[in-house]
Amino acid sequence: MQIINVCRFRNGVKSRVIKPLACFFTSSRTMAKSKFEYVRNFEVDDTCLRNCYIVVRLDGRNFHKFSEQHKFTKPNDNRALGLMARSARSVMEELEDIIIAYGQSDEFSFVFKRTSNWFKRRASKLMTHVASQFSSSYVFYWKEFFGEQPLLYPPGFDGRVVLYPSNRNLKDYLSWRQADCHINNLYNTVFWTLVQKGELTTVQAEERLKGTLAADKNEILFSEFDLNYNNEAAIHRKGTTLIWEKHDETVTKQIKGVNDERKDVHVTRSKKIVQAYHCDIIGEEFWQQHSNILEDDGC
Amino acid sequence: MQIINVCRFRNGVKSRVIKPLACFFTSSRTMAKSKFEYVRNFEVDDTCLRNCYIVVRLDGRNFHKFSEQHKFTKPNDNRALGLMARSARSVMEELEDIIIAYGQSDEFSFVFKRTSNWFKRRASKLMTHVASQFSSSYVFYWKEFFGEQPLLYPPGFDGRVVLYPSNRNLKDYLSWRQADCHINNLYNTVFWTLVQKGELTTVQAEERLKGTLAADKNEILFSEFDLNYNNEAAIHRKGTTLIWEKHDETVTKQIKGVNDERKDVHVTRSKKIVQAYHCDIIGEEFWQQHSNILEDDGC
Amino acid sequence: MQIINVCRFRNGVKSRVIKPLACFFTSSRTMAKSKFEYVRNFEVDDTCLRNCYIVVRLDGRNFHKFSEQHKFTKPNDNRALGLMARSARSVMEELEDIIIAYGQSDEFSFVFKRTSNWFKRRASKLMTHVASQFSSSYVFYWKEFFGEQPLLYPPGFDGRVVLYPSNRNLKDYLSWRQADCHINNLYNTVFWTLVQKGELTTVQAEERLKGTLAADKNEILFSEFDLNYNNEAAIHRKGTTLIWEKHDETVTKQIKGVNDERKDVHVTRSKKIVQAYHCDIIGEEFWQQHSNILEDDGC
Amino acid sequence: MQIINVCRFRNGVKSRVIKPLACFFTSSRTMAKSKFEYVRNFEVDDTCLRNCYIVVRLDGRNFHKFSEQHKFTKPNDNRALGLMARSARSVMEELEDIIIAYGQSDEFSFVFKRTSNWFKRRASKLMTHVASQFSSSYVFYWKEFFGEQPLLYPPGFDGRVVLYPSNRNLKDYLSWRQADCHINNLYNTVFWTLVQKGELTTVQAEERLKGTLAADKNEILFSEFDLNYNNEAAIHRKGTTLIWEKHDETVTKQIKGVNDERKDVHVTRSKKIVQAYHCDIIGEEFWQQHSNILEDDGC
Repeated sequence: MQIINVCRFRNGVKSRVIKPLACFFTSSRTMAKSKFEYVRNFEVDDTCLRNCYIVVRLDGRNFHKFSEQHKFTKPNDNRALGLMARSARSVMEELEDIIIAYGQSDEFSFVFKRTSNWFKRRASKLMTHVASQFSSSYVFYWKEFFGEQPLLYPPGFDGRVVLYPSNRNLKDYLSWRQADCHINNLYNTVFWTLVQKGELTTVQAEERLKGTLAADKNEILFSEFDLNYNNEAAIHRKGTTLIWEKHDETVTKQIKGVNDERKDVHVTRSKKIVQAYHCDIIGEEFWQQHSNILEDDGC
Repeated sequence: MQIINVCRFRNGVKSRVIKPLACFFTSSRTMAKSKFEYVRNFEVDDTCLRNCYIVVRLDGRNFHKFSEQHKFTKPNDNRALGLMARSARSVMEELEDIIIAYGQSDEFSFVFKRTSNWFKRRASKLMTHVASQFSSSYVFYWKEFFGEQPLLYPPGFDGRVVLYPSNRNLKDYLSWRQADCHINNLYNTVFWTLVQKGELTTVQAEERLKGTLAADKNEILFSEFDLNYNNEAAIHRKGTTLIWEKHDETVTKQIKGVNDERKDVHVTRSKKIVQAYHCDIIGEEFWQQHSNILEDDGC
Repeated sequence: MQIINVCRFRNGVKSRVIKPLACFFTSSRTMAKSKFEYVRNFEVDDTCLRNCYIVVRLDGRNFHKFSEQHKFTKPNDNRALGLMARSARSVMEELEDIIIAYGQSDEFSFVFKRTSNWFKRRASKLMTHVASQFSSSYVFYWKEFFGEQPLLYPPGFDGRVVLYPSNRNLKDYLSWRQADCHINNLYNTVFWTLVQKGELTTVQAEERLKGTLAADKNEILFSEFDLNYNNEAAIHRKGTTLIWEKHDETVTKQIKGVNDERKDVHVTRSKKIVQAYHCDIIGEEFWQQHSNILEDDGC
Repeated sequence: MQIINVCRFRNGVKSRVIKPLACFFTSSRTMAKSKFEYVRNFEVDDTCLRNCYIVVRLDGRNFHKFSEQHKFTKPNDNRALGLMARSARSVMEELEDIIIAYGQSDEFSFVFKRTSNWFKRRASKLMTHVASQFSSSYVFYWKEFFGEQPLLYPPGFDGRVVLYPSNRNLKDYLSWRQADCHINNLYNTVFWTLVQKGELTTVQAEERLKGTLAADKNEILFSEFDLNYNNEAAIHRKGTTLIWEKHDETVTKQIKGVNDERKDVHVTRSKKIVQAYHCDIIGEEFWQQHSNILEDDGC
């Protein structure tokens, strides 16, 4: 990017005498700001409907290529999953109104509580802030997960906002994403097992799996490779769910005693921290165990 | 962030024999994905009106604090401005339909051509992608501009989308931002001159400038500090405008001659590159010199 | 409105011989329809968020003037209220997905069930159809309520759409309108009693009521005019609520007997009809008695 | 519609002594209005983008059935077309910011000037008011066009809003509607000629026209029925365009002369009236002759 100072003068001559006309803000021009301010009225209000959960979902842009260029292990790369979760935590810590986040593969969904008034519920602000914080965190924390392996270029994520009026709808949304995780991971697990252990080419593996059902895939793993899919790592089968949890923290403070001697005192403080789970969120069990996540919608 | 595998078992006992029921995707559950897919219908279409310029503006989140924590020089930090422009260029190179971008301070505006069909003109996709690419680039290129000074935490930018139906409206939008740059920079220049050279406290400087007009501020600079505001760096007075320009590149290639000897041949290729300007874009001159930026709107 | 056929001819002469060029659709022009069809893409999708109640509220345009020109009795004109309710019923009968409607003064609100898919939930279609059907009905049924008194000009109503995600929100919306009815009607009742029976001018009556509370207004009615506000007609105090109710209808049919003689048979059929109520809908009682109106939102 | 006063009493007895509890607004309930007012925040802003033409198009609901029930002549009923135009004029006279309206068959489009600020450019208000005024006018003026033939029920029209950023887009929109008029009218003219004069059944006529081009249809009319389509009434071929025109009106006033005798004086006043045209609006000629309709969009 060359930087050129293109303030051009009327007669083409640069001199101290001749005023750079095009570059000179006369006071009348300065006044002009008010003349231009009408353009603000072209902004439209995109306030999210009240009393609905606001979901922001991010998806990696061209992450197929990105994962190959950065040599992600197949079918799952724990460094990459860890970095996704770390970036998601960074988003949650910046935006406390997020009550739950769920991620798998190169996507992450963030749920704002239904009564949230962050950014006055303006959809554009909410989704761009989530996309921005996530993306800068992804680069910032890269080293924590990939060590000396360099990040080759800044990655991109796009996002969207979806509203859910009822607890049922929200739970169904999260179930939809987890069901998607399950289906993809089962497929990928069998596919890469066929390639890595079964010594099939990728084309052969694809051919082999065409038309198979979940039961068929489980059977291939079990009978041919002695693998029980249910013993695969939960993080791969269930994705990552982040929620806020109270956490008791014991800190040791030194205080002065009556005779001026120093004493250690243990103080317990309660703090909300982001906790990661890799479990089923489709059934009611998770929601019963964490009944404070969803708000009663007063119906 | 502690990672807990909370697949809980029905009888509360963890054992290898008993199947973790809540964690087990039966095939009937797998089928369930279709049951949940209705939630997709809650997404709303946010296609931008056709034949309008689409402007995405990003603003730094809490950059006042960010600039202090990272010891930005006052009133302008050229490293920070350079990093903003570098990140903006990264956005433009990712999204070729951006015809012009304008930045100043901690904000940057990106203009998509009126006929653009990127992401099917979906506002959410456009703005989150710009916000994401800009933010990851900001962290990625930090070192190029700040060297060994560490980035303390991942910064955030929020964004919005505004549509402009006519060339006049778009030019007025950009003029509005440049007039804003002028007003703020004049103020900051005088303010920090009073503090840094005039040895006023910040409170005194603020007091001194209360109610002053542009002419008064120019006068303070000139009569008290022998400074002509118009000689201040253009990048500070005018901000940064990025556009695409054709650039002839001469490359040398070796070819084989008739007698098999090697010859050097010079080949000139035309390439579009992002060019930075720091000039007035309020007057018509800039637009006449770069008449290919704006499209005729066929009226 | 004069009707002029202004197909003008190139040479300015009207003649049978010379072809009216501007008016001639050549086949190439006809083809043009496809050329213009791109304009359809400027329509934006305005689908209402799923699983929310859709409320369309209509308000009379300039009904203050309209009511004076048509000599409505003060403070309430039962003919006008009857015509409003009749028009609202006409809307409900056209759009069966409306589960409840509430009206007072010159306004009427229509509530579509949360699972409605009428017009694919397109807000523009829903509200314009309600506004249109109501307005044509108002003119159509005028005579039924105003007899020989002529309608002087076609009245206008404007409308809006509001979404409510929960049963609580919807009930609060209706309560808001009924509380508005109460406040206005109490005021108007006292005001017009002061004018009509107390022989105050309208200015004096307004002055008298300035700053008074509900209790004060009740007291004026009771102590000065021996009126108990609670004995005023319910239609005026509570407005009009329309809901669907099952109604058994006994019809008499003639059938042929074994010996060919004719016999009367009574057949009872169940039919849904629109029923009007003038009662409190703020408390829970109404909703308990008509528990089928609101849907469970599955939370 | 039965009117029942369902204020139910706690003990189920209707009496003057016992207070109707459910119907009694205690002062605490009255206070409640503020408690409910939060529901206003669920309304969303639907302001139309500035500097765009706002088009409201109405379409008759179930007009196929309506036209049969009211015995409209085929292929065009001049009474019905006149009533449509009369209703459209009523809309224009109510909403002066409408600069042009175009109608054909059972549809009418209304164009608000790009700088209009009617109803603060709120889409819902604009389209419902147009739909309402048109519909009430349709019933109101029915008699003027259909005389003693009764209107059987109140008709419905639905509407939509579309924005057009440039003059070209707007003209293309109107061209699209007029091209639609041409195609439909040519088809209907041939179809009904085949039925009415050619004594084909409707099924036979449909079969005959399957796959024919415009030229084929013109040829059928000309060679078989000696009809030149271009001689058909312009109102049928071109639809109806309504615009505002200045109109000089000469009124006669009586004034008192110097000797107190009365004299007639002729005064000419200029007045804007709605004028109807039935001509081509696809070509540039119409727009050149009425160059004041469209605003320069300052590009």
